[in-house]
Amino acid sequence: MAEHQTHRYVVLADELTQLIRKGTYPVGSRVPSVRQMSRQHGVSISTVLEAYTLLEDRGLIAARPQSGYYVRPQTGEQLPEPDVSSPGRDPSQVSLHELVMMLLRDSTNPDLVQLGAALPNPEFLPVRRLNRIITGLTRQANMDTHQYLLPPGLETLRTLVARRLVNAGCSLSPNDILITSGGIEGIDLCLHAVCRPGDIVATESPMYFGTLQALEVHGLRVLEIPTHPREGIDLEALAFALEQYPVKAVLVISNFNNPLGSCIPDERKKELVGMLARKQIPLIENDVSGELYFGDKRPLVCKAFDKKGLVMLVSSFSKDIDPGLRIGWVAAGRFRSEVEWLKFTISAASPTLPQMAVAGFLEGGGYEHHLRRIRREYARNIEVLSNAVMRYFPSGTRLTRPSGGFVLWVQLPETVDSLELYKLALKGGITLAPGYVFSAAQHFPNFIRLNAAEYSYSTERAVERLGEMVFELNKS
Amino acid sequence: MAEHQTHRYVVLADELTQLIRKGTYPVGSRVPSVRQMSRQHGVSISTVLEAYTLLEDRGLIAARPQSGYYVRPQTGEQLPEPDVSSPGRDPSQVSLHELVMMLLRDSTNPDLVQLGAALPNPEFLPVRRLNRIITGLTRQANMDTHQYLLPPGLETLRTLVARRLVNAGCSLSPNDILITSGGIEGIDLCLHAVCRPGDIVATESPMYFGTLQALEVHGLRVLEIPTHPREGIDLEALAFALEQYPVKAVLVISNFNNPLGSCIPDERKKELVGMLARKQIPLIENDVSGELYFGDKRPLVCKAFDKKGLVMLVSSFSKDIDPGLRIGWVAAGRFRSEVEWLKFTISAASPTLPQMAVAGFLEGGGYEHHLRRIRREYARNIEVLSNAVMRYFPSGTRLTRPSGGFVLWVQLPETVDSLELYKLALKGGITLAPGYVFSAAQHFPNFIRLNAAEYSYSTERAVERLGEMVFELNKS
Repeated sequence: MAEHQTHRYVVLADELTQLIRKGTYPVGSRVPSVRQMSRQHGVSISTVLEAYTLLEDRGLIAARPQSGYYVRPQTGEQLPEPDVSSPGRDPSQVSLHELVMMLLRDSTNPDLVQLGAALPNPEFLPVRRLNRIITGLTRQANMDTHQYLLPPGLETLRTLVARRLVNAGCSLSPNDILITSGGIEGIDLCLHAVCRPGDIVATESPMYFGTLQALEVHGLRVLEIPTHPREGIDLEALAFALEQYPVKAVLVISNFNNPLGSCIPDERKKELVGMLARKQIPLIENDVSGELYFGDKRPLVCKAFDKKGLVMLVSSFSKDIDPGLRIGWVAAGRFRSEVEWLKFTISAASPTLPQMAVAGFLEGGGYEHHLRRIRREYARNIEVLSNAVMRYFPSGTRLTRPSGGFVLWVQLPETVDSLELYKLALKGGITLAPGYVFSAAQHFPNFIRLNAAEYSYSTERAVERLGEMVFELNKS
Repeated sequence: MAEHQTHRYVVLADELTQLIRKGTYPVGSRVPSVRQMSRQHGVSISTVLEAYTLLEDRGLIAARPQSGYYVRPQTGEQLPEPDVSSPGRDPSQVSLHELVMMLLRDSTNPDLVQLGAALPNPEFLPVRRLNRIITGLTRQANMDTHQYLLPPGLETLRTLVARRLVNAGCSLSPNDILITSGGIEGIDLCLHAVCRPGDIVATESPMYFGTLQALEVHGLRVLEIPTHPREGIDLEALAFALEQYPVKAVLVISNFNNPLGSCIPDERKKELVGMLARKQIPLIENDVSGELYFGDKRPLVCKAFDKKGLVMLVSSFSKDIDPGLRIGWVAAGRFRSEVEWLKFTISAASPTLPQMAVAGFLEGGGYEHHLRRIRREYARNIEVLSNAVMRYFPSGTRLTRPSGGFVLWVQLPETVDSLELYKLALKGGITLAPGYVFSAAQHFPNFIRLNAAEYSYSTERAVERLGEMVFELNKS
């Protein structure tokens, strides 16, 4: 009986797979509901459910809550993922200065197709509601809006952040939170608090260039740890590195590494925190995209497993609410008062009105609804961009499978230099982030990061042209 | 003839001095106009003008533009000024951490009479206009308001800043300006750009504690230079110090030093810039209160004499427009691109809406009118607070005579410890800034800084109680 059932659902799944491959159910279309399918094929509801689960596992369909199952675009023919990274074994001085400044300038050029900077899609920002909230604040004509708001910052906002973090497994008080000017300032403050010039910091590799630059500013050396394209930092490699070098801090983007899109599985997060606790090494955890998950539930943060106050959790509202308001925060554990003092010393206070605006937005409800919408949109854009890369790039190209965020990390054939591609693309009106900037030792010459936040007809055409350029460079 | 004239105007001035002392012309009253006086006493207009100039020199009357001459409150009996400071000759590590955090906490306590933090008077901020401008910005529903605005920041704002600086003797382009998160971030970026940990920075003494803390954060040693209570840094002492030590940068608050209220005379600014240019030493110039002058015209900035790009001019709109928006700027001369890169690395960008709000305010006109009003108000408050200190504090007290800004620096009898006074005052519901925090080597144990931004009946009572406490401490 069990065997017969098994057979039925596999047969059903195979039939559907054929129909999808043939285009009977084209990409984006809804497949019949479980009930319909059960009636049509004369099988039980549970058989259909098993078949659909198998199709999900095959990457062919995906469930949308309260809406049914939809055909995912061409995921049956995904490109292979990049390997676990294998950066060199020695710490490097960081220096990416000029390349990064070039990228920055690009990102403000409206004539370029923006596949470079990891900026959120402006259309996914809750601009109208924020404007209403800000207007409301100015109408109150309350003097508080115009006063300094000294560290740790607006209490309402800190309370709402602490409350929000319950989802991520944390039990924090508002006093554990310090408001910063974006996530970058949070990272900067943490590094400042626990490292001295010349110290070694271990990081995932590849790593967001802004973080690498923060390390450079502090005169730190970076030890790049092999990192899995889906599961983040390699704990065995990290353990080995900690034996070899006097590492002063470890820095990870635990959920949806930029550029990898990797997410450290929760169990491994626990292991990581335990390993560092035994060695009394602080962990700086960047969770700036943690809310932008594509799966069913929010991944936890490492901080959730922190019993010794050694995890410094950093995040911001720049990816999901408003990049222009520059509101981030840090929960610095046992380094709290040091970080608070540093914040005062380096920039006195974060601006008041932006803190109030974000607090107003979080308080007003609708944040969860907003997040559900943009998670769906970003998941879709990542998929569509992945398909475009697959269509237009030469064989030998590899691609990450992010489970959240909105960037793709593309491994080009080894002969293709990402800096040459970058220059060529720029001439063609396209900007992208060359792999060089994601490693202090420039370990990723044939990688590029593409921003999938916006996807339109011109993006599709840009990817097509990029593909042609890669073919060219591959030949030459 | 000349002798006769001289005699006449001195006699006239002495007569008026008597009348003022007797209360015939009480404090705040208008003395007869030059024309009236000339008629009454049968002397020439120029004799009266000379007499009035002498009375001004004696501190008895002050001219108000288009309004005549008024009797200044009790300035005939001003307290003596403090001497030129004489800090020790060796560089010190900075560490003021806890005292400053205590002060910070005070400043947010609404139950205290706030004579501590140097915050501007909220009633003197153009809140209504700013609110209108912000509402206007949100009504436009322009996406730009919600985007990152990468360094160097909003071009309109940089243009308006550059234009404004013509008054201060500078000919700068918008590209010379970088928008920062308040003046403090500007100082931090400059120090970061030109110093390495362990370097020596020469500063005026006393010096604003925020600056000293920035030095501490960067692991710098501070060499405190003797400073005149009205004319700022002692150039001879500085020249001597530069012979003795490998000074990497000099840091001054050129106009209205906090806490001294001193203003380096323009000729001496030129000399200072020349001296440092010959030695290729960068000058970090804080001009955060430069617009809050009490005299006829804006003092120049050192930057006005900068031919080699070695002067890094820092200022903000926190004292005169809005502290909560946290908009400052730096003109970093030859260090411009380094500072710009650092800004990106440390906090990515300053928030967008606050930059637009300040630009809107400056663009709208009325800034000059606003400044004229608050300059008058702060000048009055400084005078009234000075008088209160004179009335209630024991003999042996000395007092600065600021020509701008809104803080007073009080030298108490030598037996009085400012930290004890601070603690006693706190119990009595008053906060003030003890002298210790204005020197890395804690050279000012018997000094306090009082904030004169707000002056009300409760301030008067607070100063009276403070006076009693000083008497107590002086006896014991």
